[in-house]
Amino acid sequence: MYELIHSRIAPVTGMDVFNDSAVISIDNHRDFRLAFTTDSYVVSPIFFPGGDIGRLAVCGTVNDLAMVGAEPQCLSLGLIIEEGLPMADLQRVLASIKDASEEAGIRIITGDTKVVNKGKGDGIFINTSGIGFISNDIDISPSGIRAGDLVIVSGTIGNHGIAIMAERNGLSFPDPILSDTRPLNGIVWEILKVHAGDIHAMRDPTRGGLATTLKEMAIESSLCIEIYEEDLPVEPQVRGACELLGLDPLYVANEGVFVAFVNPDVAESIIEILHGHPYGREASVIGRVLESPSEKVLLRTKLGGTRFVDMIQGEQLPRIC
Amino acid sequence: MYELIHSRIAPVTGMDVFNDSAVISIDNHRDFRLAFTTDSYVVSPIFFPGGDIGRLAVCGTVNDLAMVGAEPQCLSLGLIIEEGLPMADLQRVLASIKDASEEAGIRIITGDTKVVNKGKGDGIFINTSGIGFISNDIDISPSGIRAGDLVIVSGTIGNHGIAIMAERNGLSFPDPILSDTRPLNGIVWEILKVHAGDIHAMRDPTRGGLATTLKEMAIESSLCIEIYEEDLPVEPQVRGACELLGLDPLYVANEGVFVAFVNPDVAESIIEILHGHPYGREASVIGRVLESPSEKVLLRTKLGGTRFVDMIQGEQLPRIC
Repeated sequence: MYELIHSRIAPVTGMDVFNDSAVISIDNHRDFRLAFTTDSYVVSPIFFPGGDIGRLAVCGTVNDLAMVGAEPQCLSLGLIIEEGLPMADLQRVLASIKDASEEAGIRIITGDTKVVNKGKGDGIFINTSGIGFISNDIDISPSGIRAGDLVIVSGTIGNHGIAIMAERNGLSFPDPILSDTRPLNGIVWEILKVHAGDIHAMRDPTRGGLATTLKEMAIESSLCIEIYEEDLPVEPQVRGACELLGLDPLYVANEGVFVAFVNPDVAESIIEILHGHPYGREASVIGRVLESPSEKVLLRTKLGGTRFVDMIQGEQLPRIC
Repeated sequence: MYELIHSRIAPVTGMDVFNDSAVISIDNHRDFRLAFTTDSYVVSPIFFPGGDIGRLAVCGTVNDLAMVGAEPQCLSLGLIIEEGLPMADLQRVLASIKDASEEAGIRIITGDTKVVNKGKGDGIFINTSGIGFISNDIDISPSGIRAGDLVIVSGTIGNHGIAIMAERNGLSFPDPILSDTRPLNGIVWEILKVHAGDIHAMRDPTRGGLATTLKEMAIESSLCIEIYEEDLPVEPQVRGACELLGLDPLYVANEGVFVAFVNPDVAESIIEILHGHPYGREASVIGRVLESPSEKVLLRTKLGGTRFVDMIQGEQLPRIC
């Protein structure tokens, strides 16, 4: 996918494919910028423990806005419905869209519905695009990462991917594994309003998991990111399921956590704020930024070893979002 | 579709489903407004005479912005690709997206690509969302329509729908019928820069054709729209194909014409400007606005009769865009 996007799509369209949201300035309006982002959601199955495609479509796009420090303003909603989708399923998805947008405090202001013949889609695909405003005291991007920054993750990793995988394969666990699909703009605002200047970069590790996101950020910042295996927050049942399925939680998709690169002087205060929010109870410092080796992610294992972490190869779990 | 959107989707999401683009104001920035719109494109086949799904996806969204008087600023691009889509087809679509966005003068600044298994999509589906800016001297909406306004259509109707229908059914005509897929922001700007205050409403009659669009506008303005059959611009080969296929050109989709409701004092000048633009050579006055009967569209036929024109029932041509 990364290859496809980089080699084929990006050159033709001129898209910046790395960032969660594009950021644009408006002539004569220097006091804020616009953030703009889009995602299509094709998750299968459309209902899963902890969420559904509707909640995912709202949260995913809200989170992409939050990751550049934008206050989400409005969403668009594009539905592609396969003929034969039960009306009850459509209504359940729509109700979920409504609930999630209310939770995130964002309005859906424009939309479009298309219907395709049976066998030419898969129940429902959803596109949401979002607009947010970024105030001028906020400057969050991978180019702001500095050597010495600490790396914080806001919650346990791997829940979303494992919840989908379990549902898809009919696996059940003693403790059900729930997707972490949730809007992050609220919790991000809690730390931004206190520490805006000391939060250098953020990103939510969705497809490709935390490993892929960290590798992207190492490349974009031309720095090295060192992380400690023993500090990675992973729920025991997720860890167990990963072992069972032969998956590495570092590569499993998330939909409700973010990674932040912060000034070490305020890391403790940020962790404290995160712990006070329902979506940040498991927030942890998981690593730090080094000068070199440039563009690398180094994992210090529990056994005291070191290995380089690379981007995901292929799609570990297709149609995870 | 209209029923589905109105009864199910609109109440749940709070969307305004009528307008081409949503328009929002920004606190403390009273000198302009934002327009925001989205569309998913599922046209089948993806290549057709006069265009393809890529050109359609750019033009359709640019046109939705232009219809509220917005200057298009940027686009998002969401691709849902079915496994097995030939790489040559993808490249052709991407090249077309690039060409159309250059022609419209709009940048694609954010994007997303998803791949679905073979048999779970149909080649490629595209979502584009767009942002435009509206300056404060422009106020274009159906509520601005007044009794006495003249109704102008910018070009011949029915070309897009018939081009798709012919391609889909393997029909060929002595003169090939080409889709009118094209960006309208340039031609709209030509008339807006001279007559902004006298252009009360605009809309591009896509799905459902001119009839459905006029009926929507009659409802939204609570006025009556009277149109004259003999003044409707229809290419002879489109008229012939419609007769052959049992279709009424009033209900056939367009992707490169718009209807404008204008102050009668400037209608002649507007027509002159439109005639000077390559996309407006066939522009014509096709009707006028009356006080009553409210919410009705009246067609004066060539034979001197009168009939009420209603919205399209069902989808005359599914997957036309």
